[in-house]
Amino acid sequence: MKGLKIAVIGGGSSYTPEIVEGFLKRAEELPVDEIYMVDIKEGQEKLNIVGNLAKRMIEKVGANIKLVLTLDRKEALKNADFVVTQFRVGGLNARARDERFPLKYDVLGQETTGPGGFAKAMRTIPVLLDICKDIKELCPNAWLINFTNPSGLVTEAILKYTNVKCIGLCNVPIHMQMDVANMLDVPYKDVFIEFAGLNHLVWGKKVWVKDQDVTNIVLEKLLDGDVLNMKNIYNMKWNPEFIRALGMLPCPYHRYYYMTDKMVEEEKEVANDPNKGTRAEQVQAIEKRLFELYKSKDLNVKPKELEKRGGAYYSDAAVSLISAIYNDKNDIHTVNTLNNGTIKGIPDDSVIEVNCIIGSRGATPISLRGELPTEILGLMQAVKSYEILATEAGVKGDKKKALLALQNHPLVPSVDVAKALLHDLFELNKEYLPQFKGL
Amino acid sequence: MKGLKIAVIGGGSSYTPEIVEGFLKRAEELPVDEIYMVDIKEGQEKLNIVGNLAKRMIEKVGANIKLVLTLDRKEALKNADFVVTQFRVGGLNARARDERFPLKYDVLGQETTGPGGFAKAMRTIPVLLDICKDIKELCPNAWLINFTNPSGLVTEAILKYTNVKCIGLCNVPIHMQMDVANMLDVPYKDVFIEFAGLNHLVWGKKVWVKDQDVTNIVLEKLLDGDVLNMKNIYNMKWNPEFIRALGMLPCPYHRYYYMTDKMVEEEKEVANDPNKGTRAEQVQAIEKRLFELYKSKDLNVKPKELEKRGGAYYSDAAVSLISAIYNDKNDIHTVNTLNNGTIKGIPDDSVIEVNCIIGSRGATPISLRGELPTEILGLMQAVKSYEILATEAGVKGDKKKALLALQNHPLVPSVDVAKALLHDLFELNKEYLPQFKGL
Amino acid sequence: MKGLKIAVIGGGSSYTPEIVEGFLKRAEELPVDEIYMVDIKEGQEKLNIVGNLAKRMIEKVGANIKLVLTLDRKEALKNADFVVTQFRVGGLNARARDERFPLKYDVLGQETTGPGGFAKAMRTIPVLLDICKDIKELCPNAWLINFTNPSGLVTEAILKYTNVKCIGLCNVPIHMQMDVANMLDVPYKDVFIEFAGLNHLVWGKKVWVKDQDVTNIVLEKLLDGDVLNMKNIYNMKWNPEFIRALGMLPCPYHRYYYMTDKMVEEEKEVANDPNKGTRAEQVQAIEKRLFELYKSKDLNVKPKELEKRGGAYYSDAAVSLISAIYNDKNDIHTVNTLNNGTIKGIPDDSVIEVNCIIGSRGATPISLRGELPTEILGLMQAVKSYEILATEAGVKGDKKKALLALQNHPLVPSVDVAKALLHDLFELNKEYLPQFKGL
Amino acid sequence: MKGLKIAVIGGGSSYTPEIVEGFLKRAEELPVDEIYMVDIKEGQEKLNIVGNLAKRMIEKVGANIKLVLTLDRKEALKNADFVVTQFRVGGLNARARDERFPLKYDVLGQETTGPGGFAKAMRTIPVLLDICKDIKELCPNAWLINFTNPSGLVTEAILKYTNVKCIGLCNVPIHMQMDVANMLDVPYKDVFIEFAGLNHLVWGKKVWVKDQDVTNIVLEKLLDGDVLNMKNIYNMKWNPEFIRALGMLPCPYHRYYYMTDKMVEEEKEVANDPNKGTRAEQVQAIEKRLFELYKSKDLNVKPKELEKRGGAYYSDAAVSLISAIYNDKNDIHTVNTLNNGTIKGIPDDSVIEVNCIIGSRGATPISLRGELPTEILGLMQAVKSYEILATEAGVKGDKKKALLALQNHPLVPSVDVAKALLHDLFELNKEYLPQFKGL
Repeated sequence: MKGLKIAVIGGGSSYTPEIVEGFLKRAEELPVDEIYMVDIKEGQEKLNIVGNLAKRMIEKVGANIKLVLTLDRKEALKNADFVVTQFRVGGLNARARDERFPLKYDVLGQETTGPGGFAKAMRTIPVLLDICKDIKELCPNAWLINFTNPSGLVTEAILKYTNVKCIGLCNVPIHMQMDVANMLDVPYKDVFIEFAGLNHLVWGKKVWVKDQDVTNIVLEKLLDGDVLNMKNIYNMKWNPEFIRALGMLPCPYHRYYYMTDKMVEEEKEVANDPNKGTRAEQVQAIEKRLFELYKSKDLNVKPKELEKRGGAYYSDAAVSLISAIYNDKNDIHTVNTLNNGTIKGIPDDSVIEVNCIIGSRGATPISLRGELPTEILGLMQAVKSYEILATEAGVKGDKKKALLALQNHPLVPSVDVAKALLHDLFELNKEYLPQFKGL
Repeated sequence: MKGLKIAVIGGGSSYTPEIVEGFLKRAEELPVDEIYMVDIKEGQEKLNIVGNLAKRMIEKVGANIKLVLTLDRKEALKNADFVVTQFRVGGLNARARDERFPLKYDVLGQETTGPGGFAKAMRTIPVLLDICKDIKELCPNAWLINFTNPSGLVTEAILKYTNVKCIGLCNVPIHMQMDVANMLDVPYKDVFIEFAGLNHLVWGKKVWVKDQDVTNIVLEKLLDGDVLNMKNIYNMKWNPEFIRALGMLPCPYHRYYYMTDKMVEEEKEVANDPNKGTRAEQVQAIEKRLFELYKSKDLNVKPKELEKRGGAYYSDAAVSLISAIYNDKNDIHTVNTLNNGTIKGIPDDSVIEVNCIIGSRGATPISLRGELPTEILGLMQAVKSYEILATEAGVKGDKKKALLALQNHPLVPSVDVAKALLHDLFELNKEYLPQFKGL
Repeated sequence: MKGLKIAVIGGGSSYTPEIVEGFLKRAEELPVDEIYMVDIKEGQEKLNIVGNLAKRMIEKVGANIKLVLTLDRKEALKNADFVVTQFRVGGLNARARDERFPLKYDVLGQETTGPGGFAKAMRTIPVLLDICKDIKELCPNAWLINFTNPSGLVTEAILKYTNVKCIGLCNVPIHMQMDVANMLDVPYKDVFIEFAGLNHLVWGKKVWVKDQDVTNIVLEKLLDGDVLNMKNIYNMKWNPEFIRALGMLPCPYHRYYYMTDKMVEEEKEVANDPNKGTRAEQVQAIEKRLFELYKSKDLNVKPKELEKRGGAYYSDAAVSLISAIYNDKNDIHTVNTLNNGTIKGIPDDSVIEVNCIIGSRGATPISLRGELPTEILGLMQAVKSYEILATEAGVKGDKKKALLALQNHPLVPSVDVAKALLHDLFELNKEYLPQFKGL
Repeated sequence: MKGLKIAVIGGGSSYTPEIVEGFLKRAEELPVDEIYMVDIKEGQEKLNIVGNLAKRMIEKVGANIKLVLTLDRKEALKNADFVVTQFRVGGLNARARDERFPLKYDVLGQETTGPGGFAKAMRTIPVLLDICKDIKELCPNAWLINFTNPSGLVTEAILKYTNVKCIGLCNVPIHMQMDVANMLDVPYKDVFIEFAGLNHLVWGKKVWVKDQDVTNIVLEKLLDGDVLNMKNIYNMKWNPEFIRALGMLPCPYHRYYYMTDKMVEEEKEVANDPNKGTRAEQVQAIEKRLFELYKSKDLNVKPKELEKRGGAYYSDAAVSLISAIYNDKNDIHTVNTLNNGTIKGIPDDSVIEVNCIIGSRGATPISLRGELPTEILGLMQAVKSYEILATEAGVKGDKKKALLALQNHPLVPSVDVAKALLHDLFELNKEYLPQFKGL
């Protein structure tokens, strides 16, 4: 039997060792023959460095996998079984700009949330749609595992405007589940969180260990200490009264909505501190060190240092998803897929982040068994309105929808600010926004 | 045939001459026998002043209406056919506090929108529920015409938690329709605005003159000049790009959401200017002058000066509604009533502001003939979530829900601010919040 | 100001005197300049007879209306303001066949309900779509008032598959409202029936006289006597226990669903009685007498005898609708229009029969203020599934959908019978079903 | 660790050996300590016979399970972990009556579908609600696995009117999945059928083998031969044109709806043939033989002959479900549980039959990823209306709702027949219908 061909778009990413490790450790269940790593010309050097590390990793375990490094996307996609996207249009420099430009207006500057995430979406959507066109032509049965951010929004663009089979991935739910398992000292697989929401705006409606509802225990631990956080988000303490009133588990990104003022202040402080810089600027330093490390001919495993990078579990989750599809496992993963009635009050054709069965037929949401509480629905609906408008703006290059999208974002305080932000981001991203012609 | 008995709760209001005029000018279609004007002890003096003016007005036209001024609410309600509520718990002083306390946190201070409106709702709901209890006992078939603010929110409390027949009224839609008629120089009755939204958050989805869609013409005129505004809202200019992108008619209150920053700034300026003061403080001066005027034995008509007061058309609209019910007219008014599927994405048992047929059976929404555009739905859903939580908090005296309500309000920037606002408003309104025991 | 041009398709119908009378008696509110009556070649004689009567009627009252009789549909449609369709594809002969062929399988044979109605729909849809094509070209702003049967189903075809402005009309609700007014001896306009359902499957959820719920009184009178019936439906007595359990007002056509066995038996009896014949056959006799009458040069008014014909009020209702649109009356009529959420559990883009405001912008449903009771919803949903499938079959000429449509009809007892019925009706209507090519 | 206590209500059932075998073969994953088999006095002899066989089965494999036979339900329920209901109120005699009485009116006589199923539901609901009361008192955390028929309807009664944790089970989906696996010669676990519908009215929207859509292949095989049938349903051939037009997999019970005429005819033939009799009468003979067999002291395994009994896989499925819950397996079973938005157009609080994840938290439906086709929705909605009304009638003892329920059943041709059926079934089941007082 023929093995699988995997195409990794954005192969030069520093995450690549994790994804390669993911395939190697699942060798028995996942018969991979070929991995094509594709990148753009500007990324060639990084592709070579990380690609060679990947080759050493494969060699070390004696796996029979052909690894191809290429700049030719079509060659990579041809007959692929799975396509993984982990690229970043404009690289970390663009992200650094995304993080800085809104601060001028006292608005959150963040990679995926707020105007920064909007800018990233506008840059990413045209590239993804282009890849989808290639997929329809070169590997129409392939599954696209997207973990390019903002993952929910761009997955909505794909699922609404193409018919490529796609699942959007995020590492936040996995992190939360792992943290709960650690905090309660129970096996990861015994923890079940009723996730409901949107990408980077997902709540744990209830947390269970088997048939025990442990939500309140987890909330108290959340208030106690340094838990349930992401590397890339400042660990601002939660307000106890609020968390108890809410009675649901927020995700780390909720800080941007629930503590907007403090979070923006913290961001500005860090951005203005020459020893710190925005998160992207910090990551650039980490990346530099990582790639130095990757160059070492002696290194033939995924280095520990990668975990500091912030996207931990992402790539491994992608491989785990691929295995669930390939082996028709029907086990539960939390992914981004079409709503189709799962959350009442969100359109059927919109993407949500929710627990799904993953098997040969892709992602199938499991029921939330009731409506979502008012406490979280309004914010979710407001952000989803932003996402729908942003998706349409990004796909069609519609500036009116772009303005409406930003104005609808709960973190943008007024139409005037929305307009100013839009002006700046169009300026800063000129070369990456072909869809908005004649800027 | 026996004529009608009308009970006006908050009879000492400065609006009273308008409501009396409303009855007098509809004498032929609306056979009113008795008007009971009831107020609380603190309002006795004003009740006497305005009540005597009302008596002179009735006398002047020779109408056969018995006018009773009383402090006994039960006497007023006994066998009433229509109950009109126009009281203000805590009076203009409470409103002035509502307008000031949020400014400390750079949050909008406004009578009906934001934390001020929340405070007003918390004060008003227990009184209204009490009135409803009396109605069930003393005049179970009476219609309650509520124009106590925040009209939508408190009407939701009545319709969700009692079975009194109630319609919530607001003068904003009437104003908008009148302004459009004036601006286009067409008869008022030829203008049809597809109103959709919530009280003080209502959009004109489309504006028609008979079968002509004049939305864009109206929007351009809105951008041009000093139109479509309310006396009590600063007439901040609309952003043309935004209004054209939106393609729908905002209501004057939308400024608080679309130009939050500028509006708060303006409010702070006015509040800090000893010659101006907040709107309530200005109204106090107007009221004082009005009541001086009302005292004059020579006055026996509604004085022109009342129109400056800000609530113009309110009372007349109430009487017009009463006539539509009494005469089973089935003509179209824009009122606050249960959604019941009219706006998809808003709960069935929530109150919306929408065009309704008004007749013997009360208010029946007319279809919006399709779903609302994403452009406005997200904000509407966010505010509705606030309203649902606020209603529950106000009815049950639930402090957790109160915190969640304020946190869910789009104009409250963070949980910390919500908590501080809540603390302040509980302090400031202690004597008016019996439902929140043990504050 | 230019007056209106009316195009009547099927001008040779025996109803024509009623529609002409309708225009004449509304001369003051409805300035009609021209009426074009168009028919097909086979109908020329009848067109001439009834057209000449119409001319005498116009002359009699001295109205300034130009009446044109023509076989040229395009001439009639050119710049028309309103188009009224009252034709019958295949004439009464086709209807007689529709009424007979299902009886062979012990299935209801009826003009609009069951397999007969299905056959009629299949014949009618292609002609209507053709007319709509002409309308888009020759009078794109015209309103199409359809009272060709099955009115709901063919209106669904128009509203789903064209963008012609169309309202579907039926005389059943008017009849019911008139009968209730008579039975209670109150003015017609004081009766309000909460109509909900589909064409010829409409229930009165509640019956009101002003603000009094008189449903139970009306139901008892329904059980008592010879009321609330149509000329063309056998007046089978209702079962008292059932009617009281239902607690809602059925329409006369409900007998076909609630007393299927007896109604089929009665139909078979009548059909086999050489002195009676099916309803169409009886109507043919009536029509013959009517046209004899129409020929009389002395006749210059609508003759009393027309009322026996069965479609009374239909044409007058059409003119009343035209006046409501032209004069932007926004009064309430019960018509067939898109659901758009009015009835929960029926698709948004399906046609329902419901109370609507009729004005310049056409028909706008008024809310049912809550969900429909289970007692009637299941049957309504089953029949609507039939209608959706039948519409699709009729528009696309899809034989599979045709089979599924008939099988889904609650009056068709099995797939085998559906197949046999389909076979027969294709045979009988060969010449009228261009969309089902290659039968 | 303490093992599990199982309570089997209706322990004297001939199915008991299968359920015991189910526990024995899962001994490693399911640590059962005690099985209490409870029955009523009339069933004591059967309970003893089958109970002793069960004891021999346990002994044979040397399992450490205490088996208690008792007439004291409270003793059985006390601290039980799982409760399985497999009783039949009125026994096979009542079923035989259910099968016969509708035939008089040419209406289907069947155990679970139509008036027979209605009668069974009316007898069963009061007993189940009584058991639920005991469960709340004696073992409030226990799971109730119901496979008493009509399984969907009575599970709706439990889930709507009690708060007992309950899953309704049926062997039809398992049968269909097994048959498809056999017919395609693939492993059972590779077959995935998109089940959607109600109990005994469930369709396979699509059939998959891993990621291959094999629906059409399966449909052709269904047309070819003697497959996809149940022991207790006459294997009437499907109409090929219809099945191809439908494009979905019907369940065996669909014959009653799609071939009503032939099925009733066949039933009457069998019922009138003294050598055959209705299904219940045949089963009585089988049961008699089975119990003779069970008496044999040499028998210590489940006898092959039980498979002829018709309910094969039922009991095993119940044990498999118990294991999935106990071990938090989250694997997919097709069960009866609350809809909660899974099927659009069916109320949220109604029970549907659908693929669910089964784990510690019970049954969670997996999304159907889109709306159901019109082709099947209408019938499903009609039957669901019947079920909702029947549930209410059965719980409240409401005769009006009972009449409306039967009238709403698609297999009951008229109100008159509904009334006659109701009369007969009340007569025949007098002693079992305590809720309908004063019959």
